[in-house]
Parts: sequence; C-alpha cells; structure tokens
Amino acid sequence: MAKLGGNPLDRSKWQQKSIVTLALTVLTSSQAILIVWSKRAGKYEYSVTTANFMVETLKCVLSLAALSRIWRSEGVTEDNKLSTTYDEVIVYPIPAALYLVKNLLQYYIFAYVDAPGYQILKNFNIISTGILYRIILKKKLSEIQWAAFVLLCAGCTTAQLNSNSDHVLQTPFQGWLMAIIMALLSGFAGVYTEAIIKKRPSRNVNVQNFWLYVFGMAFNAIAMLIQDFDAIANKGFFHGYSFITVLMILNHALSGIAVSMVLKYADNIVKVYSTSVAMLLTAVVSVFLFGFHLSLAFFLGSTVVSVAVYLHSIGKLQK
Amino acid sequence: MAKLGGNPLDRSKWQQKSIVTLALTVLTSSQAILIVWSKRAGKYEYSVTTANFMVETLKCVLSLAALSRIWRSEGVTEDNKLSTTYDEVIVYPIPAALYLVKNLLQYYIFAYVDAPGYQILKNFNIISTGILYRIILKKKLSEIQWAAFVLLCAGCTTAQLNSNSDHVLQTPFQGWLMAIIMALLSGFAGVYTEAIIKKRPSRNVNVQNFWLYVFGMAFNAIAMLIQDFDAIANKGFFHGYSFITVLMILNHALSGIAVSMVLKYADNIVKVYSTSVAMLLTAVVSVFLFGFHLSLAFFLGSTVVSVAVYLHSIGKLQK
Repeated sequence: MAKLGGNPLDRSKWQQKSIVTLALTVLTSSQAILIVWSKRAGKYEYSVTTANFMVETLKCVLSLAALSRIWRSEGVTEDNKLSTTYDEVIVYPIPAALYLVKNLLQYYIFAYVDAPGYQILKNFNIISTGILYRIILKKKLSEIQWAAFVLLCAGCTTAQLNSNSDHVLQTPFQGWLMAIIMALLSGFAGVYTEAIIKKRPSRNVNVQNFWLYVFGMAFNAIAMLIQDFDAIANKGFFHGYSFITVLMILNHALSGIAVSMVLKYADNIVKVYSTSVAMLLTAVVSVFLFGFHLSLAFFLGSTVVSVAVYLHSIGKLQK
Repeated sequence: MAKLGGNPLDRSKWQQKSIVTLALTVLTSSQAILIVWSKRAGKYEYSVTTANFMVETLKCVLSLAALSRIWRSEGVTEDNKLSTTYDEVIVYPIPAALYLVKNLLQYYIFAYVDAPGYQILKNFNIISTGILYRIILKKKLSEIQWAAFVLLCAGCTTAQLNSNSDHVLQTPFQGWLMAIIMALLSGFAGVYTEAIIKKRPSRNVNVQNFWLYVFGMAFNAIAMLIQDFDAIANKGFFHGYSFITVLMILNHALSGIAVSMVLKYADNIVKVYSTSVAMLLTAVVSVFLFGFHLSLAFFLGSTVVSVAVYLHSIGKLQK
C-alpha cells in the first residue's frame, strides 16, 4: 500500500482488486453456509448436474445482461463486441474440460477416501495452484510469499482437523495419487483461466466470461447426460428443486463471476487466499447461526492462516 | 550466513553459537526420551525435589571442574576468578527465586487444568519469552521474526494436539491466569539470566554459571525442605534412585549448562527455537524407540515450526 503513492490509476486498480476479492470472500462463505443450511433442511433431492448446468446458464445470462448495459452506454467497440476470432476462442473450452474431468474423477476417489478425508486432501489445491502459477504464468513469488503459501495450506488443514482426521494418513496410494491429480487439474484450470483472461487486458471481462461460460454450459450438459440422463428423463429436469436450491444456484453463479473478476483484476494467489479466509469466516458465522463449536485446532489454524495473509502482503517482491 | 563474509571472528562466533544450540537441542530431546523411558520402566519412586537439588549440585561441580582446567592453562585472571563483588553477585539469586515460585505454583495449577492441558498451555512460554525479550533486553525482532515467533507457538501447540485437546478450552479463568503468570515467570527468569550473563561479556561463563547454580542449590534446598522434608527424613535422601534417575540428573545438568551457553553466545530466542525443535525431534525418535504413531496434527505443526525457523533466519533485521 505504501507503494500506491498518489497515482490515481494505481489507486483505482487497487480498489477494483479489493472489491472483487471481498465479493469473492463473502460469496464463498455464504456458499458454505447455504450448503449447511440445505443439509439441515433435508437431503439433496435434486440432481447436482442439472444444478451445475443451471449455474453455467445463469452466469451466461448475467454476462450478456452486463454486456447489453455496456453496449448501450459505450456502444459496441473492438474490446466489448461479442463476436470473436477462432484464434481467440479456441482456448476457452480448456478450463471447462479440465473441470469436467476433475468432477468425473471425484466419483472415483470416494472408493479410497471418505468425505471428511477428501476435504483434507483438497488442501493440495493450494500447493498445486502455487506451483502451476509459477510454472505456467511464469510469475514469481518472493521467498516469504512461498513460505506464506505453505503456511496457508498447513493452516487451512489444521483448522479442519477433527478427532477422525488421522484416518486420512491411512489413505491407500491410489487415493493420494488421485487427490494429487485432481489438485493438479483444478490448479491447472484456474491458472489457465487466468492466462486466457489476462492475455488481452483491454478485452471486456464480460465477453471473456460469456465465452468461458458457454463452454461451461456445453461440458456440464455432457456431464449431466452421462451421469443423470435416466433420472432427468424419469423425474424431470427440476425435480427436487426448492427455494434453497435456487439460492444456491444464484450464489454459485455470482461466486463464479467473482472468481473471473479476481482473475482479471488480481490473480490465482489472491483467489486462493480469498477462498481460504472464506472457509474460516464460514466456521465463525456457523457458531452464531447453527451453534457450532470451534475447536482448538480451528483457532491454531486460523492464527497460522492470518499470519500467512500478513506475510504474503509484506512479502511483495522488491523491485 | 551470507553476511559472515570472511571475518574469522564472526565465523568462530557463529560456530560457537551453532555448537551450543545443537547441544541444547540434542540434550533437550534426549531429556524427554529419558522421561518416557523412566515412565515405562516404572513410576517416579524418588523425590523430585532431591533430584532437582542434585542437578544444581552437579552443575556447580561441573562449572568448578571446567574452571580449574582453565585456571591451570590460563592462570587466574580478572575475568575467570571465582571471587566476586557484592554488586556483581546481588542479581544472581533472582532467576533461581523466579523458578522456585514457578515450581511451587505448578502444584496449584493442576487444580484447574489436567496434565495434557498444561502441556498445551505451557506454549504461552514462547510468547512471554518473546515479549519480555523485547521489553527487558530492549532487543528488536523484525516484523517477519515476530510473525515467525507466533507461528512457532501455534506450530508447537498444533503438533501436540490430540483428540482430548479441546478440553483445554474449558479451562476456568483461574487456570488461564495461572498459566499466564507461570509463563511470565519462566520467560522473565530466562530473560533475566540472559541479562546477567551478557552484562559482562568478557567474564568467564563458568564463573557466571557457578554463581547462578549456587543460588539454584540454595533455592532448591528450600523447595526440598518445604515439600519433601518428611519423606527424606523417613526414607532417606536417595530413596528410589535408579540407574535411569542418575541418567536423568546427568542429562538435566548438561542441558542446564547448555542453556547458559546458548544465553551467553546466542539468546533466549535461539533457546526457544532450539527447545521447540527438540520437542519435534523427540516425537520422531519416539516412533522408532517406542513405536509411537505420529498424527496428522504433528505433521502440520512440524511444517509450521519448520517454516517459522526458516522465516526467523531470513527475517534478520537489515542494518
């Protein structure tokens, strides 16, 4: 912040970055709270793949709505026109394809790991994102920022510890391998999305989102047909949808857009910090909403995550 | 280390510092292993206060032995002569008196906290040492080194977590208060000892140790008479001593001398890092010696402690 000086461009960039990061944090924490709420209200009666498809569709619609406002106020320009070249659009399906593979693998990993164990192993995502960010985007983190990233991963895992967590150490080799592959897929998808969005900085982010989400719709349609064709054919597309399902879809769509914005105006590292802090916020809010108890491990993990956030911010590379 | 350059004085100082730190780490870890071993071998049959008194006596004897070697080789000088002034010696009883008060309080804290809970609360020592080091010795730590110190405390506590650790959150107010007072007493004793030893850098450390340990003997004699007079009078001073008791006394005496050396050639911060790393080493060695299992919390805590050690070393104040 000391480096901001009086440059109004830097200042407005920093504001933009802060707002989208805050939005992502709030949306991600409310997302987890909605999941707890929906579990309390009953079980998942609806098919998850149709909900995912609806999320992508809603994101597409919201991007188009934002674009039409922009077209009216600014007119259609080279940067905000929807039409695109083959060269520009060819890379857009890649993140959606990676997520599809990852989601399909998710069904198989539960043969080796239980759900709480998988929650713990998912923290590999933090490390894989850091490594792929360095390798693919060729951006550097300082020594202190690397240390902070390791702490973020250790702190998040610590905060999630409970009396059964040690089971995860008995995970068979295939379980570890799949968890690592899934972390790499998810990290790769995030880093690749950032590369796509940052490639042409002047390009309107809503156009970039539109194309990302169109392919998201397509790939989610494939997943839906593979996994739930029978259920949808028999019971209907919207079977089991409730008010809370609609809220969750809305929240997921807004979170997805917030992720794109963070990748446009900040980066994957900020995204990981934001979602990790959201995880801790969720737990604190759940104490008030659902009477959850916070464990000593949660306090210790939160302390480590807080120090990691602090170190990341003071550890900026000196130029 | 990069700053060492070719200066042979700096180099030899650094070597001295490394050797005493390593000695303290090895002695502290073997100390914990001896305790586990002695518990396996049977129960504490001997009186702990007589053992503490023997430790102080042995330290005194070892200091005198070291001094007599030095007198023979170098002759008696102003810096290595045993006789002292009232002004020099008046501060020496203070650390021993603080430890005595702390050890007496130790009996009362168990009214509020159980033994594993107390192990967890003892990590307050880390924070209290850092704060008193800053206030009393007026030495500065960099921002990164403070962050590292918080991490050291969180990491050590995490490594000690087990399924019952959450009980400690139910500790009544008096328990927290006593744990904080004990941490302050212990931190104050350590910092005060450093102040005494560093006050006259040219003074031979064995003379300084001798006077520290003479008062240690005196105060431990008081504790022995308060707590175990009857037992000693009825059963004898060395009742219940075994080979392992003798080993433990020897180890405690050598650890005590190593602490003095670390305070002479390094400082309390290095002492805290050294004993914390020793705690982790003990657990790893116990896997091989006693077939202990390491928990996920232990791995996470060790990771955080390792990052803390790394940050402390790269976080040196730029001059």
